[in-house]
Amino acid sequence: MVRPSGAGGPTLAVVAREAGVSVPTASKVANGREDVAPETRRRVTEVLDRLGYVRRPRFAADRPPALIDLVVHRLDAPWSGAVLHGVEEAAHDAGIGVVVSAALVRTRGGRPELGWLDKLGARGTAGVLFNLAELNTTQYSWLEQHRIPYVMIDPVLDPPPGVPSVGATNWQGGVSATEHLIRLGHRRIAVIGGYRRKMCSDARIAGFRSAMAAAGLRVPPEHVRHGDFDEVVAHRRMTELLALPEPPTAVFACSDQMALGVCQAAREHGLRVPDDVSVVGFDDLPQARWSSPALTTVRQPLAEMAATALRLLRRMMDGDRPEGVRTELSTRLVVRESTAPPA
Amino acid sequence: MVRPSGAGGPTLAVVAREAGVSVPTASKVANGREDVAPETRRRVTEVLDRLGYVRRPRFAADRPPALIDLVVHRLDAPWSGAVLHGVEEAAHDAGIGVVVSAALVRTRGGRPELGWLDKLGARGTAGVLFNLAELNTTQYSWLEQHRIPYVMIDPVLDPPPGVPSVGATNWQGGVSATEHLIRLGHRRIAVIGGYRRKMCSDARIAGFRSAMAAAGLRVPPEHVRHGDFDEVVAHRRMTELLALPEPPTAVFACSDQMALGVCQAAREHGLRVPDDVSVVGFDDLPQARWSSPALTTVRQPLAEMAATALRLLRRMMDGDRPEGVRTELSTRLVVRESTAPPA
Repeated sequence: MVRPSGAGGPTLAVVAREAGVSVPTASKVANGREDVAPETRRRVTEVLDRLGYVRRPRFAADRPPALIDLVVHRLDAPWSGAVLHGVEEAAHDAGIGVVVSAALVRTRGGRPELGWLDKLGARGTAGVLFNLAELNTTQYSWLEQHRIPYVMIDPVLDPPPGVPSVGATNWQGGVSATEHLIRLGHRRIAVIGGYRRKMCSDARIAGFRSAMAAAGLRVPPEHVRHGDFDEVVAHRRMTELLALPEPPTAVFACSDQMALGVCQAAREHGLRVPDDVSVVGFDDLPQARWSSPALTTVRQPLAEMAATALRLLRRMMDGDRPEGVRTELSTRLVVRESTAPPA
Repeated sequence: MVRPSGAGGPTLAVVAREAGVSVPTASKVANGREDVAPETRRRVTEVLDRLGYVRRPRFAADRPPALIDLVVHRLDAPWSGAVLHGVEEAAHDAGIGVVVSAALVRTRGGRPELGWLDKLGARGTAGVLFNLAELNTTQYSWLEQHRIPYVMIDPVLDPPPGVPSVGATNWQGGVSATEHLIRLGHRRIAVIGGYRRKMCSDARIAGFRSAMAAAGLRVPPEHVRHGDFDEVVAHRRMTELLALPEPPTAVFACSDQMALGVCQAAREHGLRVPDDVSVVGFDDLPQARWSSPALTTVRQPLAEMAATALRLLRRMMDGDRPEGVRTELSTRLVVRESTAPPA
């Protein structure tokens, strides 16, 4: 039914005449556009198929649409979905395609990633967004030297001088979570951070410490622990906290996934959340609302952060220098069912 | 520090001499490769920066690496992460870049998507994977006419004749879930499917019916309901089921997210899961393990399905025709804490 492209194929004019429609209408149908009445579309499609019309690749002459790269730490992490959604939607509106990769993880975890930058260069990327991922010094200079602009979303460490980054008000989020627990009457409050020396986690813990200090509450060193943002290690940290002579009555976990691990450890220890121990998370992933009990958490606007980063990148692609180096979007405490006054 | 590319820049030979290393080593560092001793890398980087070395775009002459398109229903759905991860990893191993878009949703939900295929063509896509997304007839013929191969991952409806698709053994999964509940002693079992007339949901419900029939159990029509795979509508369906004169003692929800909505509705009705009502999900998303109670569910290997689809697509890009039209990967029942014998 489909004939190879070439001189022998019918033109759109022939298709249009045959189907009894205008050439623009025939063109719309041939190009898969939706703004054609169903009956007209059916008729034109039938003619296109019958005559074996092959659309000529007029786009070959045009400049292809811009592509940017989005490099994420992990594609199967629950927060990646929100970031991808935010980037893709904003890029789509600007007619930009998004090439997604988790390649950088591979430079760390064993398999070394050779030639990643080569591929990126060969594709002629217009810019790169990094989410929870970072490069080594040589790779950064490679991007600079090739004048490929890049923006960090929630950078792991402090980005190189002058590199724009977008994050959330992590410190303020840590303050809000802790003040909420203090207002409920908690005094022995523990915090479980993400990886040590990770910017966003450090800022959340610093917010926790500020709120505790402002309330005149002491933070014993054993009440500050570190996980890796995932459930399993946080579960272990909570088990350790519950084994202390004076266990905390509330825990601020620096991610929702860690909060879920904390809740499960509490249950296994025979404790009810929030009756016996209160738990606050961070992120407000969709699952926070549907966990049992539904999580009190600090919402960070991941999709909006991603869209903001894309807009910054576009300005840099156009030759602008954004005025600020760090953009922070607000966090917001969402109170649900995992927090209550101490028993 | 960075000088524009051109005749004036230093060559790699100059950089190598200056840093006291071989030209291949200097090249590795300039290209951001990792297989260089840290001290050597530091020295070469210093020289690269000092001399303002700009790598010549030798890739401009080479053929750029292939790009494929992955079109998903939604990027922020929890299962999209697993699909993306599977596609990206397999594509990465093959040196292929993945352009991700959720564009097709926009052809449905109000904002019509014009020119989506134009962009795809202009970019010179080597092939397309669709996940829970589908095209209209004209768009399918456009792809055929332009000889752009495509594969469906978990197609919404029956794909056009001859189009390869990859899915899970949905029917068998429905059988396993239901047999598990029957073995526990349940007799009044309800099912909540996804959208009506969606292939994977229909197959799961058919599996449920087969297992019930094989056990000689009747399925009253009011025990078969439909949600949309998400929590909210399933919550409503469960509330309706619990209002029946003879409510079910167990529910098979055709997605984990629906199972979470079902559990929450049960709790709000004063029922404990699994003591008063058993719930089985489908998917085995990461959150199934960390919900409370942890979900008994049917695992479908989403990342493996995605990687299989990518391999099929590559063969089609090489001119092969895959022998089978439909590939199904096995599902597996994972028993956790949300199921128990009836009270």
